[in-house]
Amino acid sequence: MAFEKITREEDYSKWYNNLVKDADLAEHSAVKGCMVIKPYGYAIWEKMQAQLDKMFKDTGHSNAYFPLFVPKSLFEAEEKNAEGFAKECAVVTHYRLKTDPENDAKLIVDPKAKLEEELIVRPTSEAIIWNTYRGWIESYRDLPILVNQWANVVRWEMRTRLFLRTTEFLWQEGHTAHATRQEAIDETTKMLHVYADFAEQFMATPVIKGVKTENERFAGADDTYCIEGLMQDGKALQMGTSHFLGQNFAQAFDVKFTSKEGKQEYVWATSWGVSTRLMGALIMTHSDDEGLVLPPKLAPIQVVIVPIYRGEEQLEIISKKALEIKSDLEKIGVSVKFDDRDTFKPGYKFAEWELKGVPLRIAIGPRDLEKGTVEIARRDTKEKTAYQINDLSGKIEHLLESIQENLYLKAETFRDNHITLVNTWEEFQEVLETKTGFISAHWDGTGETEEKIKELTKATIRCIPFDTKEEKGTCVFSGNPSNQRVLFAKAY
Amino acid sequence: MAFEKITREEDYSKWYNNLVKDADLAEHSAVKGCMVIKPYGYAIWEKMQAQLDKMFKDTGHSNAYFPLFVPKSLFEAEEKNAEGFAKECAVVTHYRLKTDPENDAKLIVDPKAKLEEELIVRPTSEAIIWNTYRGWIESYRDLPILVNQWANVVRWEMRTRLFLRTTEFLWQEGHTAHATRQEAIDETTKMLHVYADFAEQFMATPVIKGVKTENERFAGADDTYCIEGLMQDGKALQMGTSHFLGQNFAQAFDVKFTSKEGKQEYVWATSWGVSTRLMGALIMTHSDDEGLVLPPKLAPIQVVIVPIYRGEEQLEIISKKALEIKSDLEKIGVSVKFDDRDTFKPGYKFAEWELKGVPLRIAIGPRDLEKGTVEIARRDTKEKTAYQINDLSGKIEHLLESIQENLYLKAETFRDNHITLVNTWEEFQEVLETKTGFISAHWDGTGETEEKIKELTKATIRCIPFDTKEEKGTCVFSGNPSNQRVLFAKAY
Repeated sequence: MAFEKITREEDYSKWYNNLVKDADLAEHSAVKGCMVIKPYGYAIWEKMQAQLDKMFKDTGHSNAYFPLFVPKSLFEAEEKNAEGFAKECAVVTHYRLKTDPENDAKLIVDPKAKLEEELIVRPTSEAIIWNTYRGWIESYRDLPILVNQWANVVRWEMRTRLFLRTTEFLWQEGHTAHATRQEAIDETTKMLHVYADFAEQFMATPVIKGVKTENERFAGADDTYCIEGLMQDGKALQMGTSHFLGQNFAQAFDVKFTSKEGKQEYVWATSWGVSTRLMGALIMTHSDDEGLVLPPKLAPIQVVIVPIYRGEEQLEIISKKALEIKSDLEKIGVSVKFDDRDTFKPGYKFAEWELKGVPLRIAIGPRDLEKGTVEIARRDTKEKTAYQINDLSGKIEHLLESIQENLYLKAETFRDNHITLVNTWEEFQEVLETKTGFISAHWDGTGETEEKIKELTKATIRCIPFDTKEEKGTCVFSGNPSNQRVLFAKAY
Repeated sequence: MAFEKITREEDYSKWYNNLVKDADLAEHSAVKGCMVIKPYGYAIWEKMQAQLDKMFKDTGHSNAYFPLFVPKSLFEAEEKNAEGFAKECAVVTHYRLKTDPENDAKLIVDPKAKLEEELIVRPTSEAIIWNTYRGWIESYRDLPILVNQWANVVRWEMRTRLFLRTTEFLWQEGHTAHATRQEAIDETTKMLHVYADFAEQFMATPVIKGVKTENERFAGADDTYCIEGLMQDGKALQMGTSHFLGQNFAQAFDVKFTSKEGKQEYVWATSWGVSTRLMGALIMTHSDDEGLVLPPKLAPIQVVIVPIYRGEEQLEIISKKALEIKSDLEKIGVSVKFDDRDTFKPGYKFAEWELKGVPLRIAIGPRDLEKGTVEIARRDTKEKTAYQINDLSGKIEHLLESIQENLYLKAETFRDNHITLVNTWEEFQEVLETKTGFISAHWDGTGETEEKIKELTKATIRCIPFDTKEEKGTCVFSGNPSNQRVLFAKAY
C-alpha cells in the first residue's frame, strides 16, 4: 500500500484526498472534474442505494427514467421562475465527429452536424420531468404521482473534490405531483425524515433537520428543507434536500388537473435528492488516521478473517475452521471475506483492511485453534479480544450492532459538543475560528445580514432547525431584533 | 384506456408501438430519439437488472462507475484499431449558457465557455475504461479485473423505436482484463452463456448462441459472440453481445503488465453488454393482440386480485378474503396487487391488467365466497378455472411455474419451426419473404457475398451458431464451396 500517512490534525483536506484514493474508493479521471468510482467505493454506494430505494418504495414511490438531455427551450420556460438557476452546464451542440481531412489520425467535430437546438446535459430534471408530467395528468385521479429516478447529473464545477463536489455525480431525484398544497408539503417533510432516518440509522451520522433561508433555497422552490451533518473538522455538510416547489413548475410547464369539483387547477410539486456526496459525509464522519471506518450496515465486507500460519499444513487446518466460521456468518446475513492470499503477510493484511474500514477482523493462528479461541479486533475502538469459537456468530452479530451504535454515539457527542450558543459578534468570530462547528445565534432575518456575515467569515446559515424555539433576542451581527436562533457554520 | 386495437396480423410495427405506449412502458420524450421509461416499464427493467446483477456477481464481477464523458483524444487513440467505429455521437463543446443580451427570456451558449477539447457522451466505455486501467495494472497480481458498469449511453440514431433503438439507452457493460489470451476467451464465452441463461430462464426467450462474421463484429473486437432471438414477426433480434477484444485496447492505451516470468506483456480484454433493448425482445416474444404477456419471473405484479361486488358490504367481506390471500402469497415471495379502486368496473380492470401482462388474475365475487372458490385466469392461455380457496398459495406457485414454462415452450416451438434449411437462392428469397425467420444456408465465407445478399434482400448473417456441424456444400448465393451453414435473417 502506498498510503501516504497524513493525520487529520496535520492536514484534514489532504488526509481526506489520500484516504479516498488509498482505500480504493474513487480517483480522478481523464475528464476534468469527473471521477471514477472504484469497485470498493461503488460497493458502499450500492449498499446506500439499496437501502434508500427500499425506503422510497416503502413510502409508495416507483422508479422511472427520463432523458439525459434537456432541450435548451425547456430551461427558458423554467428560467422565468428560477432566475437563480446555475447556467454552468455541459452543452451538446453537435451530433457527429468526422476524420480530420488534414490528418487521418485526428477527429474533428463535423460542422454539418450542428443541432438546431442545443441540448443541456441534465443538472437536475425538474424541467424535462414536468414537461413530461403535462401528458400524464388530466384529473385528480391521476394524482399523486410519486416517482423517483436514479441517474447521473452534470454541473460544471470549477473546484472539485472527490465525492464532495464533482462535475458529474450520481444521485436520486424524487419528483412528485399532488392535488393539494398540504399534500405536497407533507410529502416534502416525509422525505426529509426518510433522509434523516437513513443518515442516522445506516450511516450512523446524526443530522439536524431544518429549513433553508431564502438565500440558500433551491431557485425553483418555495421552501427547501435539508439535513445537515457535522464533519470531524468542524465543517457542516448538507447531506440531502427536500423541496416544496409550490405550483412553480406546474405554471412554467402548464400542468393542470381537473379537481373533484371540476375546476382546472395547477398541480403542486416536490423534489428531493441525495447524491454520491453522501460518500464524502460517511468518510468524514467516522474515519481516523489509519483509514476508513465504516458503519457495519453499509460495509460491503463486515468481517475479514486473516489466517496466521507457517506452511501449507497449518494453513489447511486454519482454512477449514475459517470457512466454517464464514459459512455460519453468511447464514445470518453477515458478509465475510476470508483473506487467504499467500502473497502478503498478516501485518500487511491487517493494515489493508483497517485502511478499508472493515468493522471486524478475526485473526486465527495455530495457538488459537488449540485453545478453541479466535482474536477479534474492532475497527472502531481498535480493541482486540480473544473469543471462544463456540457461538461465534451470535457474538459477532452483537459486536456489529455495538459498533454501529458506538459510531453513532461518538459522532453525536462530537456534534452536540460543537453546537455553541453565541450572543456577541466577537464570540461568533472566536468560536468559528477556534472551536468550529455549528453556531446557534440570533439573526435579524434579512438576506443582507446573511450575505455580510458570509463575506466576512465564510459562515453561512445552514438552516433554521425544525425544533428551534421562539426566543426574543438581538441579531448577533446587526443588533436588530430577532425571534429565534439559527445555525451558522462553515460548510463544504 | 385509449388502447387503439391493432392486431399483430394487421400491422406488427404499429401493434408494437401502441402496446409500448398503452401498457405504460415507455413514451417518446421532448428530446428527439430519447425515451421516457415509465414506472411500469421501469419496474420490469429493474427485475431484469436485479437478476443480471446477481448473475454477474455470482461469476465474480464487481460494479464500478466511469465518467459519462470521453475526451475526443481518447477516441483518436482507439480509432487506430477501430476505424469502423460510429462517429454519430453527442458532442459537448461548451460548459455554460448565458442570458441572451438581446432577449431576457432566452438563453444562448456562452461563446467564452468553449471547451479546449470536446467531450463525447459515451457511446460505449472501452476508451475511458482502458485509459483508466492503465493506472490499475502493474503486475499479474492485479489481474484479472472483472468489472461491470450499469450506465446510460448515447448513440445518435436517425431512426428510433422505443426500446429497440433509441439515442439514449440504459445498459450494462462488462470490461474485464486478463493475463492470458485463453482466460479472456473463456470469460467471453462464460458471459455469453450467462446472457443465454438469463434470456431463456427469465425472459422465457430461446436464443441461438454463435459468432458474428467479420462484417458484423464490434469494430474493436477480434471476435464477437452473440445471442439471437426470434420475434413473432419472423425477424431476428440481437439480444446481447460478448466481445473478445484481444490486446487491441491494451495496445491503444498502452496497458502492460509484468508477468510471473517478469516479462512486460499487453493485457487481454473482453467486453459484454445487454441493454433496454431486451425490453423490446421481451415484448415481441410473448405478447398478443390483447396486450403484454409477461413471464412470471420478470412480472412486477405476478397476481392481481379483482373484487366483484355490489355495495360496501360485499366489498368489505371480499376485501377481507382478498387481503388474506395477498398476505399468504407475499409470504412465499409472490407479488400481488389488490385492485380495489372504486372508480372502475371489473371489466375495465380485467382489460387493463391483461394489457399490462399480469400473469394471473384472481376474481372474487360473493358467490365464489359462498362456494369457497375463486376464479383464476391465466394471461398466457386465457383459461379461466375455479379453484378451491384452500391451499391457494401452492396452486398459484404451481401456475406461475407453468406459465413460465409454457411461454418458453411456445416461443421455442415457434422459433424451431422458423429455422429453415435452404439450398438454393430461389428458396432463400422465397422463405425470407413468405415464411420468414432464420434461414440456415451455406455461405462462401466472404464479406463480399454477405454484403451482396444484404443489399438484395436486407437479410444479414445473424451468426455462425456454436453448434454448427461441419458440412460440405456450396454457397447459396455464389455457388462457391462452403464448409458450414450459417444463419441468415432480417433483423431489428
